[in-house]
Amino acid sequence: MTEGKLHYEDFTPERVFSLGPKTVTAEEIIEFAAEFDPQPMHLDEAAGKASILGGLAASGWHTASMHMRMIIDSFILNSTCQGAPGVEFMDWKKPVLAGDTLSGRAIVLDSRPLRSKPGIGLVRMRTEIDNQKGETVCLAEQIIMFRMRAQQESAA
Amino acid sequence: MTEGKLHYEDFTPERVFSLGPKTVTAEEIIEFAAEFDPQPMHLDEAAGKASILGGLAASGWHTASMHMRMIIDSFILNSTCQGAPGVEFMDWKKPVLAGDTLSGRAIVLDSRPLRSKPGIGLVRMRTEIDNQKGETVCLAEQIIMFRMRAQQESAA
Repeated sequence: MTEGKLHYEDFTPERVFSLGPKTVTAEEIIEFAAEFDPQPMHLDEAAGKASILGGLAASGWHTASMHMRMIIDSFILNSTCQGAPGVEFMDWKKPVLAGDTLSGRAIVLDSRPLRSKPGIGLVRMRTEIDNQKGETVCLAEQIIMFRMRAQQESAA
Repeated sequence: MTEGKLHYEDFTPERVFSLGPKTVTAEEIIEFAAEFDPQPMHLDEAAGKASILGGLAASGWHTASMHMRMIIDSFILNSTCQGAPGVEFMDWKKPVLAGDTLSGRAIVLDSRPLRSKPGIGLVRMRTEIDNQKGETVCLAEQIIMFRMRAQQESAA
């Protein structure tokens, strides 16, 4: 049953969803990096301090993945989400360091029906993630697919 | 010592680096999704089959992270990489399903010095990841920072 869930039609332009907070631990940074991005500045505090990142810093892809979890917990699990075709851009504007607390917002930019799959629509969103100092660490625009409430059946 | 490593100057336009192969297991898909993207189609085979993805499918962010590991193993660990400011775009063109074997290439597009940090340059690369059927599943363009071989000292 999807009746009470957020559908395509609910993602109206300028609607804002809060994201986080999520505190990032050194253990999480190292665990992710060991599997997906084993560069010294993501694995070791001293190497991080010696790098231009200035400390043990999360992989950008770890930040991206944490940002996804924040979106999930904010509204995706309570929606008719059908996945996503990609990311229009993602900027890692500041390092995410061990101990940082991340929070932010997802803002609906615009939306349109997906021509190839009747009953599904594309919602373009901007996500902004800040650290505890209010500095933006990650900025992205992406498209997410949702089922429509008034499903249009088609023989196409 | 970084003498034998790939520096900024080595990333000349059109140079190609091979990526993978990497076989994706159901366990890996579920483990990543449980932490970062717990949507039914990433956690359960039956839910994946019922979704528009057609099977137990990796989160796009999992594909992104595996793609990073392929880049790491291909050339980053043998380089003077200093991190990355972001991703210009990433398209998830086909689902990555349990059992798929991914491989691909990273192609240098262009490069330029980073004005704010002498001795570091930005290399723009295109990455293409295919499955075992030769279908492209993930396409991205991103900028990666590398130290220059002939380091320019500056008081700025």
